[in-house]
Amino acid sequence: MLEFTVLRTDPPRDGYAGSHARRGVLKLNHGVVQTPIFMPVGTYGTVKGVMPRSLREMGAQIILGNTFHLWMRPGLDVIRAFGGLHAFEQWERPILTDSGGFQVWSLGAMRKITEEGVHFASPVNGDKLFMSPEVSIQIQTALDSDIVMQLDECTPYWQGDKANGHVTTEAEARQSMEMSLRWARRSQAEFERLGNRNALFGIVQGGMFEHLREESLQALVEMDFPGYAVGGVSVGEPKEAMRRIMAHTPHRLPAHKPRYLMGVGTPEDLVEGVACGVDMFDCVMPTRNARNGTYFTRYGDLKIRNARHKTDPRPIDPSCTCYACAGDSGIPWHAGGRAGFSRAYLHHLDRCGEMLGPMLATIHNLHYYLNLMQEVRDALDAGTFGDYRQRFAAERAQGV
Amino acid sequence: MLEFTVLRTDPPRDGYAGSHARRGVLKLNHGVVQTPIFMPVGTYGTVKGVMPRSLREMGAQIILGNTFHLWMRPGLDVIRAFGGLHAFEQWERPILTDSGGFQVWSLGAMRKITEEGVHFASPVNGDKLFMSPEVSIQIQTALDSDIVMQLDECTPYWQGDKANGHVTTEAEARQSMEMSLRWARRSQAEFERLGNRNALFGIVQGGMFEHLREESLQALVEMDFPGYAVGGVSVGEPKEAMRRIMAHTPHRLPAHKPRYLMGVGTPEDLVEGVACGVDMFDCVMPTRNARNGTYFTRYGDLKIRNARHKTDPRPIDPSCTCYACAGDSGIPWHAGGRAGFSRAYLHHLDRCGEMLGPMLATIHNLHYYLNLMQEVRDALDAGTFGDYRQRFAAERAQGV
Ligand SMILES: [Zn+2]
Ligand SMILES: [Zn+2]
Repeated sequence: MLEFTVLRTDPPRDGYAGSHARRGVLKLNHGVVQTPIFMPVGTYGTVKGVMPRSLREMGAQIILGNTFHLWMRPGLDVIRAFGGLHAFEQWERPILTDSGGFQVWSLGAMRKITEEGVHFASPVNGDKLFMSPEVSIQIQTALDSDIVMQLDECTPYWQGDKANGHVTTEAEARQSMEMSLRWARRSQAEFERLGNRNALFGIVQGGMFEHLREESLQALVEMDFPGYAVGGVSVGEPKEAMRRIMAHTPHRLPAHKPRYLMGVGTPEDLVEGVACGVDMFDCVMPTRNARNGTYFTRYGDLKIRNARHKTDPRPIDPSCTCYACAGDSGIPWHAGGRAGFSRAYLHHLDRCGEMLGPMLATIHNLHYYLNLMQEVRDALDAGTFGDYRQRFAAERAQGV
Repeated sequence: MLEFTVLRTDPPRDGYAGSHARRGVLKLNHGVVQTPIFMPVGTYGTVKGVMPRSLREMGAQIILGNTFHLWMRPGLDVIRAFGGLHAFEQWERPILTDSGGFQVWSLGAMRKITEEGVHFASPVNGDKLFMSPEVSIQIQTALDSDIVMQLDECTPYWQGDKANGHVTTEAEARQSMEMSLRWARRSQAEFERLGNRNALFGIVQGGMFEHLREESLQALVEMDFPGYAVGGVSVGEPKEAMRRIMAHTPHRLPAHKPRYLMGVGTPEDLVEGVACGVDMFDCVMPTRNARNGTYFTRYGDLKIRNARHKTDPRPIDPSCTCYACAGDSGIPWHAGGRAGFSRAYLHHLDRCGEMLGPMLATIHNLHYYLNLMQEVRDALDAGTFGDYRQRFAAERAQGV
């Protein structure tokens, strides 16, 4: 089940050029998602370093799981015993899973890609395994993911190794994109054969070539998926290439269906992505950077390891209401709240390698991303998204 | 400030032999502690792997800090900038700090102990440092610990290295104990000189020799400390030696003052320790074992790494109301609650090295220890501690 409604758009008016941004509501089998939305990544059935209760508290509406990882560990026998991923990981709200294609592709020398699918050796125990569009859909059906992704071949930006390779050519990108289309059809057929009651998304490929993107998009639209993703970005390309595809493809997708830009990105990418017509984002940056001591804030990014934080009593982000910044009161520093954890304390935790450091950093960074999308939705609801984009950029440049 | 009131004892009656157990209330500058109590250990100003809000939720009344560690990192300049440890770590309830003596002693070849104090090289940066009774009290005063411990020389069970050493002789234990008494006097003098408004505990030493313990105790009682600890246990001695001292010393301490058995122990040690007249316990076992995947439960201990847990839908402890076992509902499995995390999921997290594993394990293990003490207090209040001891032992032997 998937129902998508666009509540508002961002049309031009009095000296404002407008954008492709949309404010929507996405109904899925495990609940309702307000868009635009950021989806925290929970690779192995856990968003690293954070408890489900904290995710709920910070307003996470839908999280990701990684099909390939969950297939390897705990394996489908365990997931089936729990009737799916939701009960296994105690997350009752919607879940989106990727197809596993990117992870299989990343195995490099350990895998062989053919038209039929991908043969590879299990990184866990060396077993010979086979991934195909059918297998991916079977796994995602066992996971009971609310949004299932077709198996695609994720076209890389660079072919071969660093020294001897080359930027993917148009011919290579076409060949890969066309195989992904054939895999889209097989994914769809298997999804229907299994009577899966969730929703299957098609994935636009085509590398950095706009006309290939349009071909891919057109063919997928004819297959009538309930939602579409733009894949093959954040795969090693320069930032301007990603931004070029982000500006090109999403708004060409059917207006009445949700649009998901896979694996993107920084806070700036998200706000610009919304302006390009994207409804859904996922990225490991907030969680991964948290574990490296890099905090995202309204006023720019902050590296907690820096010695200048040693005695600073202020929280990471004085405007933030997360548990790390505002403690149990939820009253931000700017409003006089003093229950949060100081930069000095977080610096100390980082220096001592204490688990509480990445725990608080993860809470803050995810809260930042989720709250950013909340602010975007509020601005769209209020018809002030253009102003919001400007203020957002100015505040981020201010410095923290 | 320290006020201690014994509310109830456990006298003999109709076929019940009674015990030295007491139910008390301990008033400190940062709050009131119901005894007997277990105190979670927060070495570096954080109880490893757990947020202060979780500690509050599970009913932690007082936590520990380690003077030596906090002196090294973040250092007194930072602590002083926050006016003490409470504000730095955002824990507004009572804190007890050790003297740092055990950690300095543990430096081995890197330190030299004299009557004046201990010269040692900083393990952080190699700086030459000096620890003395006066320095320890000065640090603990900067930390604003509610309970300050005298500097003592922690007499080890074994002298020298494993191959060439020997069990501490009576002469060695006496020499050490007598120096600790002189250090107790110096600690007390410095505490008074600084006008510290918290409470200083004396520490009974004497190794495994009862008559030395009695000498130490008698001399400390004459110094009239507001509370007393039994130190020099859990220092490598056989379990029966620890139990012998636990049975000997605590109940000989002044009845109207709190008694703290340092560094002990297993759940069984705690319940027997209460019966021996102990009011306060601390131990790293619940937190350390959590990080190794060992869970304490009402029905015995459980190693989550064991393959038999792979598909088990039950929580760690079906009677437990902690977040790990009962989720946000707090309704235990035995009462029909199904919101907790399964053994299968915790096994999976452990196998994947996911942070959420030790996070949930720490919550459970600390909750177990704190709830155990709550049950002990309830039994003492109800006059049924004798029955409780029997039931506790039977349930723990049942197997999980
Ligand atoms: Zn925050
Ligand atoms: Zn529990």
